[in-house]
Amino acid sequence: MHNTSAAPPLRHPDVRLAARLAASAAAVDGGVMSNAEFLAWFGERQREQAQQVSRIPFAELRDWGFDPDTGDLRHRSGRFFAVQGLRVRSDFGPVREWAQPIIHQPEIGILGIAVRDIGGVLHLLMQAKSEPGNVNGVQLSPTVQATKSNYTRVHGGSAVPYLGCFRDCPPGRVLADVLQSEQGSWFFRKRNRNMVVEVGPEVEATEDFCWLTLGQVNALLGSENLVNMDARTVLSCIPDWQSGSDGDGEAADSARTGSLHTDTEIRSWITRRRAEHEVATEPLPLAEATGWHRTEKAIAHERGLFFSVVAVDVSSHRREVPAWSQPLLEPHGIGIAALLVKRIGGVLHALVNARVEPGFLDVLELAPTVQCTPENYAHLPADDQPPFLEEVRRRQPGRTWFDTVLSEEGGRFQHAQSRYLIIEVGDDFPTAVPEDFRWMTRCQLDTLLRYSHHLNVQARTLVAALRSL
Amino acid sequence: MHNTSAAPPLRHPDVRLAARLAASAAAVDGGVMSNAEFLAWFGERQREQAQQVSRIPFAELRDWGFDPDTGDLRHRSGRFFAVQGLRVRSDFGPVREWAQPIIHQPEIGILGIAVRDIGGVLHLLMQAKSEPGNVNGVQLSPTVQATKSNYTRVHGGSAVPYLGCFRDCPPGRVLADVLQSEQGSWFFRKRNRNMVVEVGPEVEATEDFCWLTLGQVNALLGSENLVNMDARTVLSCIPDWQSGSDGDGEAADSARTGSLHTDTEIRSWITRRRAEHEVATEPLPLAEATGWHRTEKAIAHERGLFFSVVAVDVSSHRREVPAWSQPLLEPHGIGIAALLVKRIGGVLHALVNARVEPGFLDVLELAPTVQCTPENYAHLPADDQPPFLEEVRRRQPGRTWFDTVLSEEGGRFQHAQSRYLIIEVGDDFPTAVPEDFRWMTRCQLDTLLRYSHHLNVQARTLVAALRSL
Repeated sequence: MHNTSAAPPLRHPDVRLAARLAASAAAVDGGVMSNAEFLAWFGERQREQAQQVSRIPFAELRDWGFDPDTGDLRHRSGRFFAVQGLRVRSDFGPVREWAQPIIHQPEIGILGIAVRDIGGVLHLLMQAKSEPGNVNGVQLSPTVQATKSNYTRVHGGSAVPYLGCFRDCPPGRVLADVLQSEQGSWFFRKRNRNMVVEVGPEVEATEDFCWLTLGQVNALLGSENLVNMDARTVLSCIPDWQSGSDGDGEAADSARTGSLHTDTEIRSWITRRRAEHEVATEPLPLAEATGWHRTEKAIAHERGLFFSVVAVDVSSHRREVPAWSQPLLEPHGIGIAALLVKRIGGVLHALVNARVEPGFLDVLELAPTVQCTPENYAHLPADDQPPFLEEVRRRQPGRTWFDTVLSEEGGRFQHAQSRYLIIEVGDDFPTAVPEDFRWMTRCQLDTLLRYSHHLNVQARTLVAALRSL
Repeated sequence: MHNTSAAPPLRHPDVRLAARLAASAAAVDGGVMSNAEFLAWFGERQREQAQQVSRIPFAELRDWGFDPDTGDLRHRSGRFFAVQGLRVRSDFGPVREWAQPIIHQPEIGILGIAVRDIGGVLHLLMQAKSEPGNVNGVQLSPTVQATKSNYTRVHGGSAVPYLGCFRDCPPGRVLADVLQSEQGSWFFRKRNRNMVVEVGPEVEATEDFCWLTLGQVNALLGSENLVNMDARTVLSCIPDWQSGSDGDGEAADSARTGSLHTDTEIRSWITRRRAEHEVATEPLPLAEATGWHRTEKAIAHERGLFFSVVAVDVSSHRREVPAWSQPLLEPHGIGIAALLVKRIGGVLHALVNARVEPGFLDVLELAPTVQCTPENYAHLPADDQPPFLEEVRRRQPGRTWFDTVLSEEGGRFQHAQSRYLIIEVGDDFPTAVPEDFRWMTRCQLDTLLRYSHHLNVQARTLVAALRSL
């Protein structure tokens, strides 16, 4: 392995990146496709990609079935995903022990956005993509959203476009590449690579794809059910162009402006909460998930709460596989994900919650201030209602910076919507908060987003939303 | 929850910390206890804490026994730890599928070093502590090493001294607080809080404890089997006083000097290796671990390789519990953990290996360039020998910066020793390395050490050793 070679030149972080992203964020109309053109194009994609989705009994699922021993719901290939049971014991929240169905999808997929300099401005290659569980068919998606089963073509379909941009990306063209979790109440330890890579002029937008500036995508985040969950999580992993720790001296951001807690204190708080919360999860045959019952068309909780597992048949002439059927997880009720923000000493801070979800790899992740489906708490006493939910309910319109209903992943969830809110609170709102909450700056959130499993998927949507304002 | 309060002042990182640590590292003899006094004191501790440790048949274990259904070895309280089976399937290394015994210890303990300014120099509160598996009885240990069973007093013993310094530490006094893994081949997802906290003059050294400067502890790292594993891992989590990213503008270290790969590229490489390596582990009744056999005195592999599980009886008049018996894992052969280092463009880089171990929480962690017990590879062909082992064997004494046999945790492992090496390679050594290896700067290692589960326990010892030179 020994050979003589000149030492390669040392590399430095790209000091121009923050300014290039800021310029793209400032471009609120497009150089490639104007906002008006986008809306016309997107409407056409919706008509073109129309899918017929219908609820079917489990018995009519093709290639999916219940394991006779365990009752688990699986694909006959053993790939894609499976619905199994999980027993949870924790010291957290009003209910300390329960069983539930949960989706197992151990493969790590790729969610990626390609960016390209067009006319001196960075543009994002976005995709109009339909998913069976979407309330409205087509949503704006990343360049690539591919499970390993997907891109290794277990289903025998066509190749995933642009996948090579991400799998074979030269190291110097990577802007972000980090494993991030998905819903820890619905998925068991699922995570995806969230990638942003810069591509050259050889990459062009084909049918169903378009080039938009960061400013255009940011504006679209405020449209109901338009930017999909996968696009939002990738957007949140882009280095923060306003307060990030990359670039020309921005590293000193917190050192310059200060923050309520130092970075070391924030990390220590996360470590302590992870060490002190005890959560034990144990895979369980689905048939043994107490309190859950299977009928011909659904697996549902005996009180009608939380979610059901259902089956759908999907037909479309344009997807990789012409027609298919699959299970979906159907949440009951519309979730709330709300981030309280407040200027402290002149610096914007957001209130995050160290939240235990049974499917997280590492006990807990940072969640929005409030994350719940209020219906699931209706049967519990007042003391067990989620903290700060009242502040969200009593919000003033003038201080509500963001208020948009957005969809969760339509490939796994049936009509799953959450109302995402960013609400400014006043000077009279206390900086002292319960032990599972902390005020953090944008720069601190940005740093944690570079390392896996610190912000949950709902918090990541709200970081993307906060940056879009 | 609303009340009016003045906004608290914003906080900033402690810009003096790096200089204070550097001053302590430069103090190579002690203000509190001279090196000569330390050696006399330590020798006395060894005599005072003498333990009688003898191998016993499993049947003579008190409070431990084999589960009749699974063959797992457990404490009757269900606490402490258990030896269970694990089935492993991976795409990594010459052997792709195996079963093995592994230690389950799901509780998160605390490993902590208290530091105190004495006479203007930071001193570390170190402990002389015996463990039954140590080859030499007493080793130099952190202020606190306590499992949760330990400090919640499952064994009915006395309180853990100084524990309050860590459990009730004010946030501003924390220098480091991070969850780190232990041996991923022997432990299933075990991790501990690694903490360094600053304490005030009210904290004094009691019997078995002493105050040493960082320079004194660094020098002792070069003594055979003296600084124990728990102390070494905590030392590695101290912010790097020479090239850390804290303090007065040190953040720009890599930006100033450059590195072979940018931080973004390093994180992307870790993400890719985690996404692409497939490792599936499945808990197994110990009795079903194929290839392993239980006799009256040991659970051993049929070829005599790897390790055995044995039982010991321990008597001592000074430990929390006067006498006890317990299982230990006894490795066969002395391990090698070697880090190759090289100046690239004038900047020191270390060659780390993205290493899959079955007990890691997140697929892989960064390991030394070479980490193996050569005997375990003796039956495999030349192509399956560990990469770079030959470079370690052919090292020149003048370029061997560190070469010391050190012990692994004597509370779980019987006579487990590894030879830790830091070897400088010449300009002719290639910077291009196989895909599972990367050259990284000290500053890059320091940054990753602030986030959990990036460097494995052997790499952490070598980071502590590298800083001690």
